[in-house]
Amino acid sequence: MNETTMPPRYDVAVVGAGPAGASAAINVKNRGRSVVLLAGQIPFSHISGPHLIANFAGFGETTGEELAAALGRHLSAVEVPVVTEKVTRIVRDGAGEPTDGFVLFAGDEIHRARSVVLATGVLLEGSIEGEEDLLGQGVSYCVTCDGRLFAGRRVVFISYGPPGEDEASELADAFGVEVTYLPQYQADYRLAAGVRVLEGSRPERLARVDGGVQVTLGGGRAGEPLVADAVFVSREAVAPTALLDGLETDGPHLVVDGRLQTTVPGVFAAGDCTGEPYQVAKAVGQGQVAALAAVRLLREQTEVVAGV
Amino acid sequence: MNETTMPPRYDVAVVGAGPAGASAAINVKNRGRSVVLLAGQIPFSHISGPHLIANFAGFGETTGEELAAALGRHLSAVEVPVVTEKVTRIVRDGAGEPTDGFVLFAGDEIHRARSVVLATGVLLEGSIEGEEDLLGQGVSYCVTCDGRLFAGRRVVFISYGPPGEDEASELADAFGVEVTYLPQYQADYRLAAGVRVLEGSRPERLARVDGGVQVTLGGGRAGEPLVADAVFVSREAVAPTALLDGLETDGPHLVVDGRLQTTVPGVFAAGDCTGEPYQVAKAVGQGQVAALAAVRLLREQTEVVAGV
Repeated sequence: MNETTMPPRYDVAVVGAGPAGASAAINVKNRGRSVVLLAGQIPFSHISGPHLIANFAGFGETTGEELAAALGRHLSAVEVPVVTEKVTRIVRDGAGEPTDGFVLFAGDEIHRARSVVLATGVLLEGSIEGEEDLLGQGVSYCVTCDGRLFAGRRVVFISYGPPGEDEASELADAFGVEVTYLPQYQADYRLAAGVRVLEGSRPERLARVDGGVQVTLGGGRAGEPLVADAVFVSREAVAPTALLDGLETDGPHLVVDGRLQTTVPGVFAAGDCTGEPYQVAKAVGQGQVAALAAVRLLREQTEVVAGV
Repeated sequence: MNETTMPPRYDVAVVGAGPAGASAAINVKNRGRSVVLLAGQIPFSHISGPHLIANFAGFGETTGEELAAALGRHLSAVEVPVVTEKVTRIVRDGAGEPTDGFVLFAGDEIHRARSVVLATGVLLEGSIEGEEDLLGQGVSYCVTCDGRLFAGRRVVFISYGPPGEDEASELADAFGVEVTYLPQYQADYRLAAGVRVLEGSRPERLARVDGGVQVTLGGGRAGEPLVADAVFVSREAVAPTALLDGLETDGPHLVVDGRLQTTVPGVFAAGDCTGEPYQVAKAVGQGQVAALAAVRLLREQTEVVAGV
């Protein structure tokens, strides 16, 4: 292993910047451990908004906007580094032993950490039929990683929120891709010139066909055939099982033990991805529990190594 | 059942006013259900203080004092009724069926609730050897309930914090009890004239003897015999198992399921009493989870009844 080219290893990498991820990062830092928060493009996008939050004890009546700002200030105050690239893949580091830690791919960056806290939210909309089977075979979540492969070709871009607008625009502008944008939300879409928008159509199935990937549409465009060289999907929440092998799930949720460790040793989970209720206070509390459990595991590993 | 003399029944009674209890009460109220918070004499006494709290995400760096004030304001704003008597006993209401709810005794008040959230904290000091065996047979936690029984007699008053000073003084003043006060903390004790203070002595064992209860002392007074008609114990946290029958424990913690229900159906738990970490964010999160689980159980019970 060449230390001059490999990035430094954090004690804990936290994936996802909602209340759970912020709480986890703050608590790791509070214990004097190093941490990186892999936030995705827009930290706190899920909770931000004018809606009232009245049941986060101690906050009185607040808004999603205010709460997101408070979490952001807290993270800055304790100097947690925040990476605004989406994590696309997590693998075991080194020889794959439990103490070897993990490598996390985020855009064109690589991060290393001895343990991981997943706070990726829950994928309420569910994945599209065929999506997981075609991952890496015509389906991608990452323009920075895979955009270049489809330069000058046709892409269907399925997007569950505004962050997809930038990505789709980059595909068109930077790689000359012919993009058809399928927004699964309503907004004023800000897209590069040349991006075609297909509103009111729901992707129901993805399948490999001659010439690429076929998207079967429901909603307003039911029956219309749509074939492209690749399908990109942009969601706020990514199914953690698509990031890392070995995670057991119960429906849309990760299976965790009492200390919030997943079925992959060294990987913990907090917030909506562990189950209901999908609430701020619960997420903040679990972020703390997962962080302290991760720190404790690291301490135990060090003690075992020191004891040999 | 005589409705003219029985108090109204709350949907949920929350026992204990730390971060977990406050969060539980706020969340029950937030769901439009009725709730009473049985706070003990000094709400938030456990967290109040000048110590810094830096790992409750969204709060930045705060103090126990400020946090206690924020929780108190939040409770007031949503109009949660707070009872400042300590709960001394919880029993099943009515015929004892799961849907009959509970009766909670607090000082000379009686409260009724369809379900209960225990947020009683953890008894880090542990109970005294013999204490639980002698409960109701020479050991009491409640001056208001039992003080009268020992009017004009001798009482050893073991106290783990300043709230005990008022209680011991009341025993002496209101009931003419000859009180020996054994403080297990250091402070300027504010006690009624005539209360004898025995500092620096630790109660090691309680046992029934001819003439009353014998307290065996360690510390500075080791070996000195101390016999009284009764022993009163005042702690911030009370072992929930001393309040309610049927609670299973694992060491000092209550056994709970994923929804934080204890082994007594209809009784939930949150905060330090469920286990480590003993932290504010975890307590606030669990208060929410327990409250929402209690509300959900009440809804299911109503649906079952309605479906019959």
